[in-house]
Amino acid sequence: MATELINKMAVIGVGLIGGSLALALKRAGVVRHISGWDTDPENLQLAEALQVVDTAATSAADAVCSADVVVLAVPVGSMAAAAQAVLPYMRSGSVLSDTGSVKQCVVEQVEPLARQAGVHFVAAHPISGTEHSGAAAAFAELFSGKRCIVTYGAATDTAALELVSALWRAAGSEVVCMDTLKHDRILAAISHLPHMIAYALVNSVSAYDQYDENILDYSAGGFRDFTRIASSDPVMWRDIALANKGALLEMIEQFEGFLAELKQDIHRGDGGRLYEFFRRSKNSRDALLHKEAKER
Amino acid sequence: MATELINKMAVIGVGLIGGSLALALKRAGVVRHISGWDTDPENLQLAEALQVVDTAATSAADAVCSADVVVLAVPVGSMAAAAQAVLPYMRSGSVLSDTGSVKQCVVEQVEPLARQAGVHFVAAHPISGTEHSGAAAAFAELFSGKRCIVTYGAATDTAALELVSALWRAAGSEVVCMDTLKHDRILAAISHLPHMIAYALVNSVSAYDQYDENILDYSAGGFRDFTRIASSDPVMWRDIALANKGALLEMIEQFEGFLAELKQDIHRGDGGRLYEFFRRSKNSRDALLHKEAKER
Repeated sequence: MATELINKMAVIGVGLIGGSLALALKRAGVVRHISGWDTDPENLQLAEALQVVDTAATSAADAVCSADVVVLAVPVGSMAAAAQAVLPYMRSGSVLSDTGSVKQCVVEQVEPLARQAGVHFVAAHPISGTEHSGAAAAFAELFSGKRCIVTYGAATDTAALELVSALWRAAGSEVVCMDTLKHDRILAAISHLPHMIAYALVNSVSAYDQYDENILDYSAGGFRDFTRIASSDPVMWRDIALANKGALLEMIEQFEGFLAELKQDIHRGDGGRLYEFFRRSKNSRDALLHKEAKER
Repeated sequence: MATELINKMAVIGVGLIGGSLALALKRAGVVRHISGWDTDPENLQLAEALQVVDTAATSAADAVCSADVVVLAVPVGSMAAAAQAVLPYMRSGSVLSDTGSVKQCVVEQVEPLARQAGVHFVAAHPISGTEHSGAAAAFAELFSGKRCIVTYGAATDTAALELVSALWRAAGSEVVCMDTLKHDRILAAISHLPHMIAYALVNSVSAYDQYDENILDYSAGGFRDFTRIASSDPVMWRDIALANKGALLEMIEQFEGFLAELKQDIHRGDGGRLYEFFRRSKNSRDALLHKEAKER
């Protein structure tokens, strides 16, 4: 389905995600004009200088004025404040969306505000990213071939849901629709838990200062690659950890159980069980890779 | 220091590590002839067909006959058996080495056997690898710019230590010498612990089957990259976990402490402490990257 041309779109937060969405939609030719706004003036200027957005707005109100679609691409913890800043200036019947990594709490905060303003809110989450941030890190191909989850509830407007889905498809994503709770639990497992583990691992190894020299000096590519995600933005991840608390605590506890099982097998010197534990893990991961390869 | 030409070297176990060492040393021109042996006949044939070794020996005894240096590149758990298979056929005064990822247990098992046979044993561990295995995965650049730890004890022969160090330098490695205990603790932190975590994470997420579909389908590059090392050889990692039990259990417990701290901060909703935890981790890892970049 080809996407109808949208006249004006506003992106609030022109960092890696917001900036890449703007670049992808301009490249796809589905939006005539994209106005950007950012609470960081330097980043906003950079976004305009790098032509990530067509114009840097002078205020959030200016950015969303007469926009058909407004996308909030800010950390999850700033979502409600960003919605409050733009909703009074959005035209009735227009569409508000977001790119937050947690959905239930964003919907709970933003949907009632949007309804009061006569605006349709549709929550979305592109499952893509790098450990870099800011407008300079944005690139049009970020969402290419990646999934974007668009969530819905009883209050979601069908036409708005279709429009937001079509925009993400135009940006190159495969769109999957599901309810917010399912989204939050799946993301806790495949993204939020790995980030918590990477952060804890780096701190744990850094604290191991028994020797004078820095033992991280001995790490080969394995450790560097394994901990790549521990270089992600601390503000973003603080917000995600707070916003997806329930599902995340559940996943951490499940992981702790598996690690405890492994520890017990090592303690007992049970080679048979250790082999089986590692083999099962390798098989699951290899199956994931084969599936990905087939899909390409 | 240029390495003197060695007449004959034998590699026992022509997989990723043994095969890559053979390729690197032939390319450096420091060994005249490399004979290979492997308990897996198919892999041995492959190593010869791919010219990873000059000749596939007909037996372990044949491989090491009149060799100046013999390198055992087999899983840590097979090290003692491999040493017993070759030592009776090695000439007095020649050098035996290994590539195992754990050093204390290998030295304890192999050094007394070598001494009885009049052979000098020097334990070594190249800190390089990929998640692939077998002769087909071998390549000459595997050790380029990577560290190789050569360990020593009171019984280590100085000339043999020099020879083994020179070979690894010829293969492209930066050689660092240290005692076995220090090696085992550093490796537990930067390599063995991350592998245990990756294996436990994949099993934990795979077991989360609350939904009909496979939630791993939703994983973006992050999860795939983060769990790359969970595709490593289960036999190799069973052996490492058993052989470095003490240091590894200590590291797992230290990691569990950090994860518990993080879990408590999430539970309490303490944004300040969460931010500080993530920031500290990001700083440590970013410092590691900057250091690597400067060294290049």
